[in-house]
Amino acid sequence: MTLIVQKFGGSSVADAKKIKAVAKRIIKIRKKGHQVVVVVSATGKTTDELLKFAAKIIDNPCKREMDMLLSAGEQISIALLSMAIKAKKYDAISLTGAQAGICTDSVHNKARITRIKTKKLKKELKKGRIVVVAGFQGISSGEDITTLGRGGSDLTAVALAVVLKAKVCEIYTDVAGVYTADPRIVKEAEKINYLSFDEMLEMAGLGTQVMQARSVEMAKKFNIDLHIRSTFLREKGTIVTREVSCMEDVVVSGIASDSDQVKISITKLPDRPGVAAQLFSELGEKDINVDMIIQSSARDGVNNISFTVSRTNLKKTLETMNKIKKKLGAKEVFYDAQVAKVSLIGVGMRSHSGVASKMFSILAAEKINIEMISTSEIRISCVIKEKNLTKAVRVLHKKFKLDQKLSKKNISTKKS
Amino acid sequence: MTLIVQKFGGSSVADAKKIKAVAKRIIKIRKKGHQVVVVVSATGKTTDELLKFAAKIIDNPCKREMDMLLSAGEQISIALLSMAIKAKKYDAISLTGAQAGICTDSVHNKARITRIKTKKLKKELKKGRIVVVAGFQGISSGEDITTLGRGGSDLTAVALAVVLKAKVCEIYTDVAGVYTADPRIVKEAEKINYLSFDEMLEMAGLGTQVMQARSVEMAKKFNIDLHIRSTFLREKGTIVTREVSCMEDVVVSGIASDSDQVKISITKLPDRPGVAAQLFSELGEKDINVDMIIQSSARDGVNNISFTVSRTNLKKTLETMNKIKKKLGAKEVFYDAQVAKVSLIGVGMRSHSGVASKMFSILAAEKINIEMISTSEIRISCVIKEKNLTKAVRVLHKKFKLDQKLSKKNISTKKS
Repeated sequence: MTLIVQKFGGSSVADAKKIKAVAKRIIKIRKKGHQVVVVVSATGKTTDELLKFAAKIIDNPCKREMDMLLSAGEQISIALLSMAIKAKKYDAISLTGAQAGICTDSVHNKARITRIKTKKLKKELKKGRIVVVAGFQGISSGEDITTLGRGGSDLTAVALAVVLKAKVCEIYTDVAGVYTADPRIVKEAEKINYLSFDEMLEMAGLGTQVMQARSVEMAKKFNIDLHIRSTFLREKGTIVTREVSCMEDVVVSGIASDSDQVKISITKLPDRPGVAAQLFSELGEKDINVDMIIQSSARDGVNNISFTVSRTNLKKTLETMNKIKKKLGAKEVFYDAQVAKVSLIGVGMRSHSGVASKMFSILAAEKINIEMISTSEIRISCVIKEKNLTKAVRVLHKKFKLDQKLSKKNISTKKS
Repeated sequence: MTLIVQKFGGSSVADAKKIKAVAKRIIKIRKKGHQVVVVVSATGKTTDELLKFAAKIIDNPCKREMDMLLSAGEQISIALLSMAIKAKKYDAISLTGAQAGICTDSVHNKARITRIKTKKLKKELKKGRIVVVAGFQGISSGEDITTLGRGGSDLTAVALAVVLKAKVCEIYTDVAGVYTADPRIVKEAEKINYLSFDEMLEMAGLGTQVMQARSVEMAKKFNIDLHIRSTFLREKGTIVTREVSCMEDVVVSGIASDSDQVKISITKLPDRPGVAAQLFSELGEKDINVDMIIQSSARDGVNNISFTVSRTNLKKTLETMNKIKKKLGAKEVFYDAQVAKVSLIGVGMRSHSGVASKMFSILAAEKINIEMISTSEIRISCVIKEKNLTKAVRVLHKKFKLDQKLSKKNISTKKS
């Protein structure tokens, strides 16, 4: 008997009708003879209401109490979903993070799973029950309720799939899978049938927010296949799996676009060893994630450095940068919030050369200026003006032939 | 250092403003140097919303899942209240029923507390923290979340007061205390300053719904003083304590009135041993609580029996009674929902005779017919027509001189 872990996000359980639909979906898998563990999130509405309530009481609530508060949200979801399954005459049991044995460290709001005690889970599965586990939450060694931070429910699902040796971890969401490009930008965008973990990691890191990178990393580490699919459609979604050689036949698997970018520049930094290190370590201390970095070659003993950060960090970044400017005696700090990032991703790039130059030529032909470039083994990213983003994504999608039923080819290569 | 347990009901924590007021109230006690354990309920709104949500999914939800669902409500309350205390720079920690060590049996929806592990509670108190405990909930030996049923938060508070050897258990509510009569009926009704546990038990059982009887019973058993007072007023409320001899100076402490009554009659039951036992045991099996019972003296080998039940049980009771009628060959089952119960309560009745006859005379003088009578050592109850209830309560209140500053006298006798 194989075990399947299914994870449903908050939007999948937002009302009674949706909860009933999800229950039906779960039972369909159970009927096929599989054991089923379901991980479910709090509804966005519940979380928002709780956050709003807390904000009325205190500006900066204690993290432990925030975890106590927010974890009530999943508790509500698991109870309701179990009821819906039982209403259809299938046996189910809801378990909080603690009851499911999800042990974490004690870093509230972004705890790490340290261990999963599977005894209770296995006992309930053995009884033939569908086990409904609260995502996003765990319990510390001090028996405090903790939460896992953003994408925490995905992490719960993958971690359970690992320890229970599941066949697959299905991530149900409100999109049909991962697409070759954002369908809101490219109407010919195709659902990708198979992706490697590395490709998915690049996608996750690049504004294709179907899954957080940390969950994909865990799936990769323990080789658990992910199946990203729609809660409300029957069709298969995108299967994320270990890399197989035929995946290289497809040079570019997808195009990621990210408007949540702002470019920060600091000019006339003294050109001496350790200056860049000091700059980025101070940003790191403020929890500011820096993405791309360009350092212009030093001239007259001074340097210019530009980098990109998420727009939500703009204010914090500028404050930090202005302090650094004074401390290091730089000249000026300025920013450009009208930028965006476009990226090509594909494991095939490892064995196919010329992808970067083709990308640059295509953009140049459209008179799109490239402001920054960064690359990995399987990715090329360019920062461009935001106003050019749509055009860039569309033309790259077309010129790299991602609209030509790539997905079907992808299936056949996988099956061969 | 003395320990005080404070319990706040759901209406006391219904919004951010009220939660802040409650936090202030708690801190006031802490400032006096007391250790404080606070027990808090879910807000009525949260509970209602959760119940409504569940009702949309299934008609008769599994009790275990209901406990999982509803217990999220107190979890929200404790987190928010702890935040509010911390916002005022006092250290606090919230604990779920499980974290507070409240162990119960596994009868979901109406579990009984079997044991309280005090280690964690004592540890947190020792750190100088205000400990905020989720009322109404506990954990079974199988580590399932359980709830204690109606009045469960009061029970949590009293039980904690017992095991932590608290000086007093303060029950905060939306009324100023226990009154000599329902203030909506008698505008001269006075707050009672001191009541014995037995008097409070009679009050609790008689529609004066400040506290459920099971919590008062526990307080009596372990001799924990209760202080029933208003969340939003500064004045002292009603102290419920062990009986002291001077309490007997007050013959009647209060008048309880209860409109939630319906009289059921069955006629021409065969007059043979065991018939009444069969009747009431069948009602008991359906969880129908029978209050007063009258059996007319047998004539011609048949009997008439009348009894009262709560109006919410009317339908269920009639169904059961009609079955019994057929089985036993009785003649008729009928009911009167236009009845009410008025009761005099006072430990002084033990040593003062003539209270009952005085009560009957007063009612007779008002031409109020008494349909049923029941008594205990410290209580006399009469079932009358509901339309006469207001008049009965007012005249009894006046004739027994409950409007004559009884409460002040009560204070002075207690102090002497």
